[in-house]
Amino acid sequence: MAADAPDTTAEEPPQTAAPGPAIALNHQVRLAARPSGMLKRSDFEFTHEPIPVPSDGEFAVEISHISLDPAMRGWMNAGATYIEGVELGDVMRAGAVGRVSASKHPGFSVGDHACGIFGVQEHALSDGRGVIKVDPALAPIETYLGTLAMTGLTAYFGLLDVAKVREGETVVVSGAAGAVGSVVGQIAKIKGARAVGIAGGADKCRWLTEEIGFDAAIDYKNEDVRAALRERAPDRVDVYFDNVGGEILDAALARLARGARVVICGAISQYNNTTPYRGPANYIALLPARAAMIGFVVFDYADRYGEAAAELAGWIADGRLVSREEVLEGGVDAFPETLLRLFSGENTGKLVLHVGAR
Amino acid sequence: MAADAPDTTAEEPPQTAAPGPAIALNHQVRLAARPSGMLKRSDFEFTHEPIPVPSDGEFAVEISHISLDPAMRGWMNAGATYIEGVELGDVMRAGAVGRVSASKHPGFSVGDHACGIFGVQEHALSDGRGVIKVDPALAPIETYLGTLAMTGLTAYFGLLDVAKVREGETVVVSGAAGAVGSVVGQIAKIKGARAVGIAGGADKCRWLTEEIGFDAAIDYKNEDVRAALRERAPDRVDVYFDNVGGEILDAALARLARGARVVICGAISQYNNTTPYRGPANYIALLPARAAMIGFVVFDYADRYGEAAAELAGWIADGRLVSREEVLEGGVDAFPETLLRLFSGENTGKLVLHVGAR
Repeated sequence: MAADAPDTTAEEPPQTAAPGPAIALNHQVRLAARPSGMLKRSDFEFTHEPIPVPSDGEFAVEISHISLDPAMRGWMNAGATYIEGVELGDVMRAGAVGRVSASKHPGFSVGDHACGIFGVQEHALSDGRGVIKVDPALAPIETYLGTLAMTGLTAYFGLLDVAKVREGETVVVSGAAGAVGSVVGQIAKIKGARAVGIAGGADKCRWLTEEIGFDAAIDYKNEDVRAALRERAPDRVDVYFDNVGGEILDAALARLARGARVVICGAISQYNNTTPYRGPANYIALLPARAAMIGFVVFDYADRYGEAAAELAGWIADGRLVSREEVLEGGVDAFPETLLRLFSGENTGKLVLHVGAR
Repeated sequence: MAADAPDTTAEEPPQTAAPGPAIALNHQVRLAARPSGMLKRSDFEFTHEPIPVPSDGEFAVEISHISLDPAMRGWMNAGATYIEGVELGDVMRAGAVGRVSASKHPGFSVGDHACGIFGVQEHALSDGRGVIKVDPALAPIETYLGTLAMTGLTAYFGLLDVAKVREGETVVVSGAAGAVGSVVGQIAKIKGARAVGIAGGADKCRWLTEEIGFDAAIDYKNEDVRAALRERAPDRVDVYFDNVGGEILDAALARLARGARVVICGAISQYNNTTPYRGPANYIALLPARAAMIGFVVFDYADRYGEAAAELAGWIADGRLVSREEVLEGGVDAFPETLLRLFSGENTGKLVLHVGAR
């Protein structure tokens, strides 16, 4: 079976054909259907093919950790937003880290650790584009999927470059116990702002205020967010960093300070809707507040990733920034159920799937 | 009857008490009720009192023209947004122009023409704060309520300072045949941008494209705005200047260009709702477009009104900017019905009520 003509049948073949050791297989998760509403396991298919062999200019990676991100729900839809959707039948797009297992690429050697958009699979080929080498001696390898990668960089550029937070301001962030939100609040504190997090459940709220230094937290599952914002953001909201959309966005818009910046990072409460998004009725509050609601995409800051990641790593080393990852086991087969945890709000910090040999 | 203890009874008194000429009265419109939904005549009361006499530092104005503005609907609500609501029983707030009829103010002489927030009445007292003198020889007096006043200044600062329109961009404006929108599109053209107006009805659309130089118009009452935007804004929308909210805002958000600016100036489609505003479900389009939705209040530019009005007056004099006012008769008694024309979309250009002696 040639590497360039992969067999993607769903059944495991009887391992009798080859002499010598059994054929090692690359297990993969492919997009099988466009979800309607909440994604489900049957939106994916589980395939296998031989472990790919690099051609000249390529290298192969044995993946150890896969990133789970709310944005994946959008990638499962047809068409493009800030990035093309995944084609039906393609390996599901995902950021991942792993170890170079074979290389015909001058920049990557066997044993190097690399981070890139390798997909939900156990092995990937790459030509090196968009891939960075990472050092597991400097930080746990999964941190390179979170605080030192897209989610940390999203928090960094969203708060510092888009919102341009200033000392003494009040920053409110939703999805505050998530991978982006938890970093937003901590950077706000580092910059001398007041940080208020909105999260679901007493445990998450306690983590925010008692362990990672938020000034206050609001438990949206058990509190009236509007009333709580009046109490915990008494000077109103200078920066609202929104990861969730829906009613919480409306509540925050009702509390904007003059000149506020509302950063639209995501809308996890809306991604699995079968009906149109709930638009924020309080958008008109932008007018008396002279406020701006701003969309951004972290990819636009690619030429500054290095500088930002270095600063984030420094804060982690200093103990000023806590990077929390929740690493779940189960391999690629557990991908759908693990991804669903994001939408049910079960995770705290960055959600990562460990992929080992099986 | 002393001027400082006005009689505000609703019935005209028998004119028998005073010797000499009959007492001239100041007819007024006061806020009688907070409207629920669409405003109606019974939300106002019609009163009269003696014509006020200025004290030291004051002058009296005989009002000739009253400005009608969508913002008035908001002023009728309780509480403050960018400005306090009108108190029940107070003369309804309105911009107006008139002639100084008596003065104990060093800056204003009898015969001067003045523009200020004089209210819906025939005569007003002023201490001069916020009042500017205007010259009816330079422009028709009603122009000082529109293109050379708040509506023109709103268009000017909203497009040039908030949206920062650039040559070659596509500007789409809703309420395009209105007092603000018609000026927005014309300034866009002056600045070398493409102007597309959204208005209600074929007559308004024809006026936009055939008489005041818009590149294209969309008749929202008879066209699918989304389809029309795809056709008439083929390079997408760099600046969307929104006066209306609702479905048209959503349609424009679906067509944003990368880096677009959405200026929130008003939401006339929503002001008379009894239910919450319709939030723009497509606000999430701000994210892939890296776009900003920005609220602003023209009052913030007060120190530049003079410079802006001079530039607007120059464009009018050059024939590059058409200022259209629709001046209706009927005096202050016709105020409620005239204001309602704004919300039914009957006016083209600036709506003005002529107030004469009766």
